[in-house]
Amino acid sequence: MRAALYLDAGDVVVDDVPDPAVQLPSDAVVRVVRSCVCGSDLWAYRDTFKREPRSRLGHEFIGLVEEVGSEVTRVRPGDLVVAPFSYGCGACWWCLRGLPTSCPDNGTWGSGRDDGAQGEILRVPFADANLVVAPGGLEAYDDAGLLDLLALTDVMATGLHGATMAGVTSGSTVVVVGDGAVGQCAVLGSVNVLGAERVILLSRNPARQELGRRFGAAEVVAVRGEEAKEAVLDLTDGHGAPAVVEAVGTPESWQTALDVVCDGGQVGAVGVPHTAPTIATMPLLGRNLGVRVGIAPVGHYLPDLVDRVVAGTLAPGPVFDLTLPLEQTPEAYAAMDRREAIKVALVP
Amino acid sequence: MRAALYLDAGDVVVDDVPDPAVQLPSDAVVRVVRSCVCGSDLWAYRDTFKREPRSRLGHEFIGLVEEVGSEVTRVRPGDLVVAPFSYGCGACWWCLRGLPTSCPDNGTWGSGRDDGAQGEILRVPFADANLVVAPGGLEAYDDAGLLDLLALTDVMATGLHGATMAGVTSGSTVVVVGDGAVGQCAVLGSVNVLGAERVILLSRNPARQELGRRFGAAEVVAVRGEEAKEAVLDLTDGHGAPAVVEAVGTPESWQTALDVVCDGGQVGAVGVPHTAPTIATMPLLGRNLGVRVGIAPVGHYLPDLVDRVVAGTLAPGPVFDLTLPLEQTPEAYAAMDRREAIKVALVP
Repeated sequence: MRAALYLDAGDVVVDDVPDPAVQLPSDAVVRVVRSCVCGSDLWAYRDTFKREPRSRLGHEFIGLVEEVGSEVTRVRPGDLVVAPFSYGCGACWWCLRGLPTSCPDNGTWGSGRDDGAQGEILRVPFADANLVVAPGGLEAYDDAGLLDLLALTDVMATGLHGATMAGVTSGSTVVVVGDGAVGQCAVLGSVNVLGAERVILLSRNPARQELGRRFGAAEVVAVRGEEAKEAVLDLTDGHGAPAVVEAVGTPESWQTALDVVCDGGQVGAVGVPHTAPTIATMPLLGRNLGVRVGIAPVGHYLPDLVDRVVAGTLAPGPVFDLTLPLEQTPEAYAAMDRREAIKVALVP
Repeated sequence: MRAALYLDAGDVVVDDVPDPAVQLPSDAVVRVVRSCVCGSDLWAYRDTFKREPRSRLGHEFIGLVEEVGSEVTRVRPGDLVVAPFSYGCGACWWCLRGLPTSCPDNGTWGSGRDDGAQGEILRVPFADANLVVAPGGLEAYDDAGLLDLLALTDVMATGLHGATMAGVTSGSTVVVVGDGAVGQCAVLGSVNVLGAERVILLSRNPARQELGRRFGAAEVVAVRGEEAKEAVLDLTDGHGAPAVVEAVGTPESWQTALDVVCDGGQVGAVGVPHTAPTIATMPLLGRNLGVRVGIAPVGHYLPDLVDRVVAGTLAPGPVFDLTLPLEQTPEAYAAMDRREAIKVALVP
């Protein structure tokens, strides 16, 4: 089978790798229908994160079940399934509390021992606990529908997780810092899933501003830093917003998030801090601020999100603004690296 | 009138100061019935915080209204009143949202322009918005009842605020880091007000352990640092606690709080960080942790807490383990500085 491999910074190839097979009774083998490239895939590509040469890439996919182990009962060969980007055992203290990211058996596609999603086939451990069946099978979804499902595997769930951690609820005023796929999905999740009344998106890119408005952002602030602070305060009678989603992960974006949150408010952060910002606690004290930081436990959100897509009430697919064949994975990375595309879908 | 004055590190005196008077129509003048010394009063005493020589001291008091301005309608001369340690205007965006600590007109007794509580009489701005009447007047309360009310002015509300920020709710398992008056009140607030099922208190001091148990701590961990982490994990099947109250404010206590909170959990921090810890965001990410830091908006909690004391269902007064006359305020500071007393009440 074919799969994308990391060689070095800026160097990704598609090459032949061994076909995976069922190894444990709880495994499934899934043939990829759609995969994609994530902003976090760019770290190693940009050399800000080390990765083994010839390691497998990609953590987002939907696919068709090809084979299941003897203990698997909830998914069957032929099912169209949506996979969370990281999995858990489904039975431990953490998984039972909706936090598979803390499961001792947690794994992420394209990391460590796990097959990458930017390829043709993956072995999926704990298939029953993690794969969510999209009803109707492959024939029930057009291209747009498949991209809607694909977006759930990471960015939609991650954006929603950020909004949830920021305390967004019905009627909230929300600021989203970050106009990438996760920031866009934080807008959509805030408005569409959580019922926010007003979302202000920080974005300086016209195409991303347009997508943000399409996803429900009432206002766009097209400046950054101190100017963004002033603009948000102007829009909120000088108070700031009670809920802020941080979807970038740099010290600068964190500062902006803390600048635009109102006293008593909450920052929900899903921008993976590859530059590892630190927060001084003293400035939080007088302002009664909360911060919550977390990698999304996608499996916790996935059944509900699949239901919404199937019902036609949630459509995050437009975060994909380019689709390429798997063989052109190197071009997909390059397009995202140059910010020519928000997010690129891959078709094996 | 007589009042405590700060002279220098380790040097507090009681001296004559001018009597306060009503200055604005919304003012009240209140004669102190009970005041006390706070752990935070020790910072300047220990020279970790600068304070003007001859500045007024103390921010916690209950008292009898002596005189009110022409606009004051909710409190009358002769009323026994409970004062939050810091006040707001009662009418601004922040005050209306229960956050008088962020009010532009916020003030704290014994700070800036405001009279200190360690004295005989104070001028109270925005009296209607801040003073809570204790029904029945002075004759309705014995010494213990007066101390119960006095504790509400800061430590009880602050401990409850910490527990609230930590997400404590009915059935919670909670760890409280810090066995001072605020930590003790976090135990009491968790169990008595919020309905926590199990509180684990970190304390190495036998008298404080005993008080913690009296306030509802089911277990006491009598070690610190790495040993405390191990002990709490042992008590929680290796998971840690979903809610942790940080009531010390040092980098070490913060580390312990983050060590004993379970993944997905929340730290509520009210230990004023006079050594200003910083938090790295990266370790929070994989564990899905939240932190909320805040100076207690006491006025938000005060009416309910006074009701509970009056109803006989809440009795935080035992945090006071020594009572001295106002003239012995220097001895009160010394006793707390030497950790011979948890908290000292003062009687003018």
